[in-house]
Amino acid sequence: MGADHGSDDRHTAATELSDVLRQSIDELVSTEAPAATLKATLETARETLGHLKGCRRPPHQLASLDAEARGHRIHNPAAGEGNPIAPPLRVYAVDGGVEATLEVGRAYEGPPGYVHGGVTALLLDELLGSAAVEVGRYGMTARLSVTYRRPVPLRTPILFRAAVVETDGRRTKVAGTVSPLTAPHTTLVEAEGLFIQPSDDTRRAYFDGLVAADGSPAPDYHVRPSGPDDAPRTP
Amino acid sequence: MGADHGSDDRHTAATELSDVLRQSIDELVSTEAPAATLKATLETARETLGHLKGCRRPPHQLASLDAEARGHRIHNPAAGEGNPIAPPLRVYAVDGGVEATLEVGRAYEGPPGYVHGGVTALLLDELLGSAAVEVGRYGMTARLSVTYRRPVPLRTPILFRAAVVETDGRRTKVAGTVSPLTAPHTTLVEAEGLFIQPSDDTRRAYFDGLVAADGSPAPDYHVRPSGPDDAPRTP
Repeated sequence: MGADHGSDDRHTAATELSDVLRQSIDELVSTEAPAATLKATLETARETLGHLKGCRRPPHQLASLDAEARGHRIHNPAAGEGNPIAPPLRVYAVDGGVEATLEVGRAYEGPPGYVHGGVTALLLDELLGSAAVEVGRYGMTARLSVTYRRPVPLRTPILFRAAVVETDGRRTKVAGTVSPLTAPHTTLVEAEGLFIQPSDDTRRAYFDGLVAADGSPAPDYHVRPSGPDDAPRTP
Repeated sequence: MGADHGSDDRHTAATELSDVLRQSIDELVSTEAPAATLKATLETARETLGHLKGCRRPPHQLASLDAEARGHRIHNPAAGEGNPIAPPLRVYAVDGGVEATLEVGRAYEGPPGYVHGGVTALLLDELLGSAAVEVGRYGMTARLSVTYRRPVPLRTPILFRAAVVETDGRRTKVAGTVSPLTAPHTTLVEAEGLFIQPSDDTRRAYFDGLVAADGSPAPDYHVRPSGPDDAPRTP
């Protein structure tokens, strides 16, 4: 990124803002505050919304923060540091595949004390897709099968692992597991995903009209999930 | 709810606050605002977070808004009106199953212009689980298989449908589809889910220590997704 401090500053501010909103969501879904407190909170929350309004990129324009500042999708709903919906899942390349560790918070709760099964599926789709990207095989999800053996506890370090198991033309099959970080041989959930790289014709049909952040026609868009970070996983 | 205006007020405020945060997320993931604007926004966002802090229920305590005010889980990450992460998906009972319609926003974007495959899986898990609840068969997800035929467009009314297809003891199999609302015979995505009602022993093991909002031992907790609303779907 070097001299492009404008993008760096925007990336830092967007990431911090995302983190504050993420913490606010965690408090909101946990709060027993009285109605008066919630109403007072509503006022500052509306101010924040007011500040943010009026600067939207058009529907078919890519985010400049994606294009200029990072080279990955910072607003991805599973892995994006710039999306308060994402925990975010930080996926790292390891020998033979990808990994991520995460303590899932209350905003993702399904049965009391456990991660919503659909949230686990969301994170696994992102993880498995990143494993395909890691071996240079971008693709869109064609099938995702998730088997839930035991519930995934909230507020507990969880280890996500995935690796490509089969490739065939534009098809990439990936398998993954979810385990407690302290018991990596215990499988709570396992998943298999099939990712297909769209043909040139399909890609053109899907992404026709897409423009880059500066409004110029987007370069031939390769379906690219956020992919694993380059940095090694900190143990 | 009748005379319990305290809960009604809190439910209204929590729902409004959730909605404002949800709109803020949508703006944040869409914004091209300069760094200075984002930094100014950060100040009011931090005030909101400050207001919310200090009123958290303990980890194993159910939310009073769930228990007193509504009878469903308002903080559910897919369907909860009180969780900014949820679009929310509003599931209604219909003849023979359940339905929901939703325009999915940019915060849930995967490939540019389309819903993240994992988000579709999240919504389908909630939908299929609600179809099981609708016939009185609460269960936790044991398997979820999603087949993606075509990408699901953002900002387009989407129809989600699901119905129970097989029951066997504590097992309930549910099938569902995702279609454009204007082309309900076109299947974009289809899914099958297996939901298993935990045995009494398993349920006790999973939910041991859970307490109700007033701190008393939780009643025998039946694994209950938010389930469909009673109100008919507005066409």
